[in-house]
Amino acid sequence: MSVTFPSGFRAAGLACGIKAEGLDLALVAAEQTCPAAAVFTTNRAQAAPILVSREHLASGRARAVIVNAGCANAATGPRGLADAREMASLTARAVGCRADEVVVASTGVIGVRLPMVRVREGIARAADRLTMDGGADAARAILTTDTRPKEACLEIPIGGRHVRIGAMAKGAGMIAPKMATMLAVFTTDAAIEAPLLRGALAEAAGESLNRITVDGDTSTNDMAVALASGASGNRPIAGPGPDFDEFRAALADLGRRLAEMLVRDGEGATRIAEVRVEGAASGADADRLARCVAESALVKTALHGGDPNWGRVLAALGRAGVEVDVSRVDIWIGDVWVAEGGHARDYEERLAAEAMRQDPVRLLVRLREGSASGWMWTTDLTRAYVDINAHYRS
Amino acid sequence: MSVTFPSGFRAAGLACGIKAEGLDLALVAAEQTCPAAAVFTTNRAQAAPILVSREHLASGRARAVIVNAGCANAATGPRGLADAREMASLTARAVGCRADEVVVASTGVIGVRLPMVRVREGIARAADRLTMDGGADAARAILTTDTRPKEACLEIPIGGRHVRIGAMAKGAGMIAPKMATMLAVFTTDAAIEAPLLRGALAEAAGESLNRITVDGDTSTNDMAVALASGASGNRPIAGPGPDFDEFRAALADLGRRLAEMLVRDGEGATRIAEVRVEGAASGADADRLARCVAESALVKTALHGGDPNWGRVLAALGRAGVEVDVSRVDIWIGDVWVAEGGHARDYEERLAAEAMRQDPVRLLVRLREGSASGWMWTTDLTRAYVDINAHYRS
Repeated sequence: MSVTFPSGFRAAGLACGIKAEGLDLALVAAEQTCPAAAVFTTNRAQAAPILVSREHLASGRARAVIVNAGCANAATGPRGLADAREMASLTARAVGCRADEVVVASTGVIGVRLPMVRVREGIARAADRLTMDGGADAARAILTTDTRPKEACLEIPIGGRHVRIGAMAKGAGMIAPKMATMLAVFTTDAAIEAPLLRGALAEAAGESLNRITVDGDTSTNDMAVALASGASGNRPIAGPGPDFDEFRAALADLGRRLAEMLVRDGEGATRIAEVRVEGAASGADADRLARCVAESALVKTALHGGDPNWGRVLAALGRAGVEVDVSRVDIWIGDVWVAEGGHARDYEERLAAEAMRQDPVRLLVRLREGSASGWMWTTDLTRAYVDINAHYRS
Repeated sequence: MSVTFPSGFRAAGLACGIKAEGLDLALVAAEQTCPAAAVFTTNRAQAAPILVSREHLASGRARAVIVNAGCANAATGPRGLADAREMASLTARAVGCRADEVVVASTGVIGVRLPMVRVREGIARAADRLTMDGGADAARAILTTDTRPKEACLEIPIGGRHVRIGAMAKGAGMIAPKMATMLAVFTTDAAIEAPLLRGALAEAAGESLNRITVDGDTSTNDMAVALASGASGNRPIAGPGPDFDEFRAALADLGRRLAEMLVRDGEGATRIAEVRVEGAASGADADRLARCVAESALVKTALHGGDPNWGRVLAALGRAGVEVDVSRVDIWIGDVWVAEGGHARDYEERLAAEAMRQDPVRLLVRLREGSASGWMWTTDLTRAYVDINAHYRS
């Protein structure tokens, strides 16, 4: 149950030959053009589909999302941009809307052009196959090195109706979103205005998809997009208030579920960890410290080995570029308080090792700088990550 | 031929039982107290020996350097600080100088106290064993996960005499020095004043030891120290001029040799790469871009696989936090010009793959923002890195 869970959406996923095997083209279409919003990668190297989608979503309205896997259409120059525009116009013609009402997303190898002959044929076929239960196929068709699809949905009462939200995402590698995210498509049958949808999406991404890291590499193609069909018939959400609060909490909840699925399926991951920093001078400091710990190759290999090597956590905090008095840092692994005031407590090594083999591992850092907190989810770093990425294009 | 190559120095290296096996205590002593300088880690979590050595070197003079491997004496609180001070005073007594004329360095596991009973016995024994050819033992006694010792030396005519410089270093993991470096000890028989020695050392580190990265993790214990015995009898170097220029060029040359040895012996490394960024708006921008590429897990795994995946280089440039117009970026792998203006050229894949299997691999990025350049040396990321670090303490 993914993007076709809410009323007013159809989807399809199929194989058109961009990848050597497997589904690689997904189409999600609303019954009519509706409010839409997106957040995009902050990488300065932005792929052609990002440029096109950003332009198209300026209006706050969209009808369809076309996604291909296997080729990122990034670093492809003016011809890649023309390819992305053609994907939009072909999709528009097939579903019956304007080209600027189509959101385009691509994921896969960078620096290679799309095989447009196959894409053209695929888009026509996908439009023919759009169904009200096509969400599962669509969720599979956007994957690259992911080992499983990521789908989530929920239903909540808002404005007198049962409002549904569905979502699909892909992740696995080159994951350290910062402000935007990997590929995620949210659909909802809520009636909500585009600026509010945009606000709710940015907030949801900030508290979920932006808090995961697999390898610290931010993609050129990250995008999270949301379309709101309004088909549930709820009182339209037109401003702040309880309805909007319900909606954005639900969207954030769904975002967290996707984020956990994404980090769990991080390339080569065998376990995940939550890195939480409390007592920081500001939220930005807390986030930066949590990210530095979460991205440390030494912390991530210790996670893999189940080695409660908290000294690596301390070393990562010390190089994060944040004004921190390390002699006032406390560190917990799970419930085991291992370091106080920047040095070892007399803890039981066996218990710390046990806490380091949980899933998720919980690493908690308490500073005495202020009252702000932040967190990140990360994966362990494994041989399998190396294997997957040493020969990604071969 | 390491730190005992220049006249006026003796050294020893022995096993005192800090590590489970192998040499783990090194002592380097000048015949008399002489000009000395050091650069230290910029990590905010600074180990006890760093704090003590910084204090001692404020005078610009030192007589001896005591180094232990196997225990970093970091995150050990006030008792760890007392241990580091005791190492200095024991060494001072054994070689016949003041405690504040001793530089202390430790490397190994963080958060564990030194076995001082063994250290005390070891220091006494090391002082007894000081010889004029003890440099080789000393270079072996400072290693942790290194697979081989790093020693270098050279002789140049300065101020009417043949001046010698010798050096030893250790590295392997938690290597991304920034401004300071891993453990390195330089000795010279040049007569040179301490402020000039400090300037030459900082410059040498900036152009060598600070330009290598294995895993992006900056150590709590990094230090490079230089002692100048003056025993060569050269005209003392007391200010800027040809003699100083010769000396600092020689020191930088030695630093580069050590840096290459260090990165070549990076944990699990099978090849190294030079990442060079040209045409940047400033040296700081160029360095930051080069570092971001050099630290990217995706670039490092591609290096391992010999996969000329230059898209990952572009993606790393894009997230480096530097104002760069990626549509004006050219990329070379070895002599193969793979990307122009931010997108693929029509290059021969076979040649690019061949260039990606050289050692070192040469990655060149040309921007069109200005005329500044910068570079970094990095390793590939391998299964062996994961294996070494998953169970470092076990």
